[in-house]
Amino acid sequence: MELLTTNNVWMMVCTFLVFFMHLGFSFLEIGLTQQKNTVNILFKNFFVITAGILIYYLVGFNLMYPGDFVMGKTVGFAGFFIDPGEGYDQLTYADGGYTYWTDFLFQAMFAATAATIISGAVAERIKIFSFILIATLYVAIVYPIVGSWHWGTGWAYDLGFYDFAGSTLVHSVGGWGALIIIYFLGARKGKFDKDGNPVAIPGSNLPLSAAGVLILWLGWFGFNGGSVLSADPALTSLTLVTTCLAAAAGGIACALTAKGVYGTLDITMFMNGVLGGLVGITAGADQMSPAEAIAIGAIAGPIVLGGVALLDKAKLDDPVGAIPVHLFCGMWGTLAVGIFGGLASGTQIAIQAAVIGVAGIFCCVGAGLIVLLVKALVGLRVSEAEEAEGLDIAEHGTGAYADFSIK
Amino acid sequence: MELLTTNNVWMMVCTFLVFFMHLGFSFLEIGLTQQKNTVNILFKNFFVITAGILIYYLVGFNLMYPGDFVMGKTVGFAGFFIDPGEGYDQLTYADGGYTYWTDFLFQAMFAATAATIISGAVAERIKIFSFILIATLYVAIVYPIVGSWHWGTGWAYDLGFYDFAGSTLVHSVGGWGALIIIYFLGARKGKFDKDGNPVAIPGSNLPLSAAGVLILWLGWFGFNGGSVLSADPALTSLTLVTTCLAAAAGGIACALTAKGVYGTLDITMFMNGVLGGLVGITAGADQMSPAEAIAIGAIAGPIVLGGVALLDKAKLDDPVGAIPVHLFCGMWGTLAVGIFGGLASGTQIAIQAAVIGVAGIFCCVGAGLIVLLVKALVGLRVSEAEEAEGLDIAEHGTGAYADFSIK
Amino acid sequence: MELLTTNNVWMMVCTFLVFFMHLGFSFLEIGLTQQKNTVNILFKNFFVITAGILIYYLVGFNLMYPGDFVMGKTVGFAGFFIDPGEGYDQLTYADGGYTYWTDFLFQAMFAATAATIISGAVAERIKIFSFILIATLYVAIVYPIVGSWHWGTGWAYDLGFYDFAGSTLVHSVGGWGALIIIYFLGARKGKFDKDGNPVAIPGSNLPLSAAGVLILWLGWFGFNGGSVLSADPALTSLTLVTTCLAAAAGGIACALTAKGVYGTLDITMFMNGVLGGLVGITAGADQMSPAEAIAIGAIAGPIVLGGVALLDKAKLDDPVGAIPVHLFCGMWGTLAVGIFGGLASGTQIAIQAAVIGVAGIFCCVGAGLIVLLVKALVGLRVSEAEEAEGLDIAEHGTGAYADFSIK
Repeated sequence: MELLTTNNVWMMVCTFLVFFMHLGFSFLEIGLTQQKNTVNILFKNFFVITAGILIYYLVGFNLMYPGDFVMGKTVGFAGFFIDPGEGYDQLTYADGGYTYWTDFLFQAMFAATAATIISGAVAERIKIFSFILIATLYVAIVYPIVGSWHWGTGWAYDLGFYDFAGSTLVHSVGGWGALIIIYFLGARKGKFDKDGNPVAIPGSNLPLSAAGVLILWLGWFGFNGGSVLSADPALTSLTLVTTCLAAAAGGIACALTAKGVYGTLDITMFMNGVLGGLVGITAGADQMSPAEAIAIGAIAGPIVLGGVALLDKAKLDDPVGAIPVHLFCGMWGTLAVGIFGGLASGTQIAIQAAVIGVAGIFCCVGAGLIVLLVKALVGLRVSEAEEAEGLDIAEHGTGAYADFSIK
Repeated sequence: MELLTTNNVWMMVCTFLVFFMHLGFSFLEIGLTQQKNTVNILFKNFFVITAGILIYYLVGFNLMYPGDFVMGKTVGFAGFFIDPGEGYDQLTYADGGYTYWTDFLFQAMFAATAATIISGAVAERIKIFSFILIATLYVAIVYPIVGSWHWGTGWAYDLGFYDFAGSTLVHSVGGWGALIIIYFLGARKGKFDKDGNPVAIPGSNLPLSAAGVLILWLGWFGFNGGSVLSADPALTSLTLVTTCLAAAAGGIACALTAKGVYGTLDITMFMNGVLGGLVGITAGADQMSPAEAIAIGAIAGPIVLGGVALLDKAKLDDPVGAIPVHLFCGMWGTLAVGIFGGLASGTQIAIQAAVIGVAGIFCCVGAGLIVLLVKALVGLRVSEAEEAEGLDIAEHGTGAYADFSIK
Repeated sequence: MELLTTNNVWMMVCTFLVFFMHLGFSFLEIGLTQQKNTVNILFKNFFVITAGILIYYLVGFNLMYPGDFVMGKTVGFAGFFIDPGEGYDQLTYADGGYTYWTDFLFQAMFAATAATIISGAVAERIKIFSFILIATLYVAIVYPIVGSWHWGTGWAYDLGFYDFAGSTLVHSVGGWGALIIIYFLGARKGKFDKDGNPVAIPGSNLPLSAAGVLILWLGWFGFNGGSVLSADPALTSLTLVTTCLAAAAGGIACALTAKGVYGTLDITMFMNGVLGGLVGITAGADQMSPAEAIAIGAIAGPIVLGGVALLDKAKLDDPVGAIPVHLFCGMWGTLAVGIFGGLASGTQIAIQAAVIGVAGIFCCVGAGLIVLLVKALVGLRVSEAEEAEGLDIAEHGTGAYADFSIK
């Protein structure tokens, strides 16, 4: 009983921290985008966290943890609404257990995260109603099905796949969705000049972005630390150390690479490098030594930088760098489980790559179908006039910073 | 001993979260008001949290938990200063206990909250010194006496009243005080046009307001979760789930209603709807099923919207919507304990309504006497010239955003 | 095992809170300085937290906790990199123990704090590369050696010195470094007029500064609460109460003194008074009664005010008030352990003063040597043109608030 209580306290604290990541994402996005689209981003963030919890209550949790599967352990559904049944205050699949309710809430916060990743990439030109439909369908269907494959003990679990806290199951799932949607959505007006070269659209509030990254780092203590699914002292503590060292190495490595390549001490690369290190360590945070965590982070940093350049080359417009951070570093971190740490082996690398591939295809197809459906129903993109005016006025009738001069 | 330690850790974490709500209130108020009054709001917030703790140490705690009562269990006082006496490291009224010191600090954070609710409603035109006097007296006397009726095991406790975490005892107490004070204070210059129609005075920094709401939601995990008064796994976890579902439902319901009534996707209504849902669930967070929590939140959302319209009609000026959120949803949540969940019954509804009424009368009379006293002593309102110039310069000699152009 | 788990959960929570203080410092600095140097401050903050953790992993931890000492217990080194050895999941020097990894991470967050204190004082004119070198050397060498004297059970520990959570070992160490560096660095252009009188350079974003102070207060729950090194209910709870009361008293006392001396209700003095109270209580937070904590805070408040005036008189330019808060109140708090509380005695005062003195000399010499080395290698200060333009453009090629007008 004492251990159950302590485990449950720990899992509740981690739930709070993952919840708080939604402020981090919100600040990050607002800061890296233009001031005229701020209210719109806030509205999307509020929608994601509120609707995300309700959708996960309605359908997501029971799609992700279905109990029984069909079709080769690819999908299952335990019914609408959560229902703890008898003995509702205890689950036994974790060491010492914690409660069903805590489990639901912790997982619900994760689910909302996937939609938030998409929110950043599509900022500044998507119709708000289209975003609402896309985010709802993606969180209700695609995210929990992929999650069920591993965390719901589906086929990937049987295969020996390892993804501790979700480099693939959360971050890449969000990242693939973002990639497909921005492909169909197109770049912001003015993002590429007439020769196709990218034009920097500077962020409107870098202090908020920096705060967002520090809040996300804080939240990651819960994201990874809670994925131990108990308060086991050795595992939780090690996980926090590897998480921090990877974040630090990712930030420094990305900033140094940016200095080497572009000659500037770029704060946004420093910030996104930290996030890349965090995403990278997420799949194997409980399996790595401190030195291995530093190596994983130090490789994730330059991946972010290269990923930004790659998207620019492909004329894909991701205003906040969500895809380099969450998709590319998510793939790297998932592979790294086979390269470094306690599970390293050629076989593991192959398994990790296989699941990355299958999950990627499923997410792309799922996102593609959702986008085409929504495009056909209500369209995707605001008009050119609305985009120029800003989505705050066009979609919400108010700006974010009224009266912002000293009188 | 182990359970005491774990319970105490949980209560300390919840104390931190309720403390952090003061940043949430601060951001919320700053963002929804004009930029020229920002320093004044910050000063009020700093006063509330610092003086609130000191006042609660000096007198509030022992007025709220007096032990012995007089006058039909309506008031009692255990003396000035806190004093743990013998065996000071343990209290036994909660399952497994937690320490006297933690109890004091957790309660002190609650007390300061009530004053903060007032702070938002009176923003942009109250004299700072008048606010200091009013807040001090209200927190020192009115708040703890009402609290003693239920949490201090006074007459309302004997009657069978139920208010888990303070829909009435904290939120409505703050809200009634706000209502009376803004009645005497009058509306901001320009809030109503010459025909008496309300004029929107847009907020100066909506990203900070949105951050404030997310921080308040985070803080509510401690506000409600800590009100279990132990780390009991089943009760704490259930409380967090109902809290989140009500918040989510409140936000969505308020935003949808606003869209239906006014046609706009209003971010401030989304935000205040979340807060309304949180206040609404607070009285019965440990008594509701998930579905009941969603119902309570979904009703609280439109109450916020209607409350704002009602205040406008009554020509009462509440710049941040404190009264619809804290008073109206506080009353709703307190009644809901008799309508939904484990305690639902006609008798319970009557008891809840009776205490709402008595507490309301007591708060109004108390606030009225305080306001009239302060008005007689030092006046309530800054001059028209000071209000036009802004309270930052008039009262504090500095603006909040010096040098805020790009050079 | 249960108690180990609970202690470890508590220490992890405290680690999170101390980590979060880096956002507090960041907001505080940004808000109190000019808008044109914001990106530069963010870059320094990101460097401090990321490099700080890596440096502490590489060398700091084993210099601070060397096990074996040489030269009269003044210095020792247990080797590069952290290495838990056998039985890595448990340490036994705290009641019930917590893990080696948690210990490392908690201490790493403290180490980074010392560099952040310097960051604030040198803002707006130091070369970024010079700051990087100085901060690295100071955190790698000076901070852990001083720490080893007491927390690593060196000579000051043997002497009977008491510094619970680091008024001297963290705050004064950072403060002395800041003092020496700003002496060599010189004041910002325009800070003193041609008669040598100080000119106010108003902060660009006071809401962020205020948020920073509240976040720092929150973080101090972990800074002091975690310094109990276990979740012992009586000690942790008492520590939190003394911490809060000192913060509240410090803020009120500093604001009142400022009102008395200068006639204004100064929000920055309110804020820095809170921080002064927090630094003041840090050395003896577990030794004081509530009333003694209030006394210590109430004295710390005016010390901040006097310290600011003293630095102005000495023509030393500390844009954020880091030295009055961290150095002067750090000295006060360390002395206060001999004056108030369970350890009060003439002998204790003498011991406290002796260690304050020796630590101060060591820090000044260490900082002086580092500054002169860095000055010789790469210089200290940006050019006058760069300072006028702002370090954001000069050093980082971007401003912090692009496009910050309503379009």
